[in-house]
Amino acid sequence: MRDRALALALTLALLCAPACVSTHASKDEVHNALAQVLRSQQAAWNAGDIEGFMRAGYWDSEDTTFLSGGTWTRGFAAVMERFKQRYTEEGAEMGQLAFTELETIAMTDRSGIARGRWQLTFGDGSKTGGLFTLLMWKQSDGQWRIVHDHTSSDEA
Amino acid sequence: MRDRALALALTLALLCAPACVSTHASKDEVHNALAQVLRSQQAAWNAGDIEGFMRAGYWDSEDTTFLSGGTWTRGFAAVMERFKQRYTEEGAEMGQLAFTELETIAMTDRSGIARGRWQLTFGDGSKTGGLFTLLMWKQSDGQWRIVHDHTSSDEA
Repeated sequence: MRDRALALALTLALLCAPACVSTHASKDEVHNALAQVLRSQQAAWNAGDIEGFMRAGYWDSEDTTFLSGGTWTRGFAAVMERFKQRYTEEGAEMGQLAFTELETIAMTDRSGIARGRWQLTFGDGSKTGGLFTLLMWKQSDGQWRIVHDHTSSDEA
Repeated sequence: MRDRALALALTLALLCAPACVSTHASKDEVHNALAQVLRSQQAAWNAGDIEGFMRAGYWDSEDTTFLSGGTWTRGFAAVMERFKQRYTEEGAEMGQLAFTELETIAMTDRSGIARGRWQLTFGDGSKTGGLFTLLMWKQSDGQWRIVHDHTSSDEA
């Protein structure tokens, strides 16, 4: 009887321990992982590579969402198309991207929120920018990706 | 020795079981809880009660954040002040608030994301609106509250 109780308790402990220790153990790990994704995105953008920017940052899923300026864009391909239309068509300019003021919240060891400021600087020195809130998940391959992006612009 | 192993395993199991079972059990519960908070906020706003709107929705903490129009507002009191300045001073009008198109993501049984559309309709029939993304937590008293709000306006 006691053997069975011990076996059951051990099984439960082994199954549950990862969930138990995860939430608080890895705040810095989550922060560093999210910051690394944003650095990769910034580097791709500043190399003029929108597809690289997308793949470095966003979850490749129909459920990925991007909210901005009153428009709700759904799905990895549609989000990429939105960026391409805005920044690569008809003489549009991508500019140089900088993410600053990054703050993160680790929800679990596989999910977190990143907030911060984005700024684009164009060839003529003009700038545009605003704030972002990202929900990010750690995929099964270990990579962190954005599943929901709310990006807004500074008030005129 | 075996008694100590059993005691340790049982303690670990008891400590960890809530974290273990929580994540997947309650997607609908989380959705309903978040929707209920937004209904309460809407009712308070539409009764002209900004403080009620704040208390029904936001975490009463220095760490509560509100991002909108390029401005990062931090702390429950500062967020309330921002709403009061915008909607109650010098002939400003609160209007009638509606939240629509609500979609939620349950991260754990104590944390979730709510996305949707907000709209204010004023006395003269004019409207303003946009999108919101909320990070919400279940407090120790069982109430769900917004800890981070990113609200943006429709593009002009």
